[in-house]
Amino acid sequence: MNLIILADSDRTGDNTFRLVDHRADHIRSVLNASENDTIQIGLVNGPVGLARITHLTDTEILVACDNLTDPPPITPTVDLICALPRPQTLKKVLFTAAMMGIRQLHLIRANRVEKSYFHSPLLESTHYTPFLLEGLAQGKLTRLPAVCVHDRFKPFFEDTLPSLDQSESTPALRLLPDSDTPRKLPAVYRGTEPRLTIAIGPEGGWVPFEIDLMASLTFERFTLGRPILRVEHAVTAILAQIELLCDT
Amino acid sequence: MNLIILADSDRTGDNTFRLVDHRADHIRSVLNASENDTIQIGLVNGPVGLARITHLTDTEILVACDNLTDPPPITPTVDLICALPRPQTLKKVLFTAAMMGIRQLHLIRANRVEKSYFHSPLLESTHYTPFLLEGLAQGKLTRLPAVCVHDRFKPFFEDTLPSLDQSESTPALRLLPDSDTPRKLPAVYRGTEPRLTIAIGPEGGWVPFEIDLMASLTFERFTLGRPILRVEHAVTAILAQIELLCDT
Repeated sequence: MNLIILADSDRTGDNTFRLVDHRADHIRSVLNASENDTIQIGLVNGPVGLARITHLTDTEILVACDNLTDPPPITPTVDLICALPRPQTLKKVLFTAAMMGIRQLHLIRANRVEKSYFHSPLLESTHYTPFLLEGLAQGKLTRLPAVCVHDRFKPFFEDTLPSLDQSESTPALRLLPDSDTPRKLPAVYRGTEPRLTIAIGPEGGWVPFEIDLMASLTFERFTLGRPILRVEHAVTAILAQIELLCDT
Repeated sequence: MNLIILADSDRTGDNTFRLVDHRADHIRSVLNASENDTIQIGLVNGPVGLARITHLTDTEILVACDNLTDPPPITPTVDLICALPRPQTLKKVLFTAAMMGIRQLHLIRANRVEKSYFHSPLLESTHYTPFLLEGLAQGKLTRLPAVCVHDRFKPFFEDTLPSLDQSESTPALRLLPDSDTPRKLPAVYRGTEPRLTIAIGPEGGWVPFEIDLMASLTFERFTLGRPILRVEHAVTAILAQIELLCDT
């Protein structure tokens, strides 16, 4: 935990927050903080900065955030479309998406996605949000990715995605990692594009119909490299390559 | 499992192998293979190609590898030095190192490494090798990374590393990911260097003495990007950035 992330649900007053969970344990046991110490705090979808511990006991910690002056560390530019993975993998994808600064995570149906995955309790906000918060605390970021679930493949690409794009001021560069192409990311991404939409396939890959549909909708294929990666590693690998190339 | 990896311990004859474990389950249940079908096989530290199933029952599968003609998919060029992480993280590092084609993995002592980690049974070959084999099967690679454990920091860098380097035909470019520098990987790595040695710190990072020692030994600092990554994600991120830049 590199940043203590505070949410509205922790708020007890205008600038005061109360912690009773694993974050309080971390402040006591790892940071070894005491009353009147300052600690690094980030507000969900808000600024970061130093906050003062006004009260610390074995059961609760109160902090005063009068002086959070730094803006959110990253303005996310990447929307991730991910064929809904099995729940254990989804937990890792949620964590990584938040840790690495994804803006939106669209979890979609695909031919090789098991239908039962759409009944997972993890798709409810109360269940998935803790993994996002843990990711923000690791990455030292504060923008909570928006998570949307879409249980049909073709309507998502033909209707939902265009309408999402139309609500933005600039269109997104659409990217499709694909181990069958020799083309690397710099061939399709210059590092200056203000928005990116990236589609990650299921274990076992997309089927040809899915690839063809995305290609017809201007998704540009590129390879992440020679090894074949698991979904959760592909997410990390793509975002690391974008971090390398982006001009900020 | 994208490739069935066979080891010498599976061998029953010159070119015949016997499988009884999860790989046999995979061949039966995921590949739905039958007798006389061919499947993709890789030999540990050896070639890949198609092998024929000569016998298949609920308890064992025999395969004949008369025709493995393709050389190992990648000649690894990266040695990874990793401050010994806790066992749960080490399992992920082992898997990722093999999946992404690491040559050697040096697990070393550092100030922020808990001494108890050096007593983990996972540091024994019989315990760590299954994670490496699983990584090879995912990445479709066959070169098994060598794993070495070094329980002292300074002697590793001052004595062991130079003597390892002297045994090679070319010196390695030494890299040190460090979130405190703005310099990205292309500033220190051209993509043509034949060998790389990369040092990954512990959770909580290196202490200043360790950074200074490595810098004095020509380790070049660079940043992986803005978010702060966990050890296992840092390994994936670095290797993904190298895959992007390398000229193969």
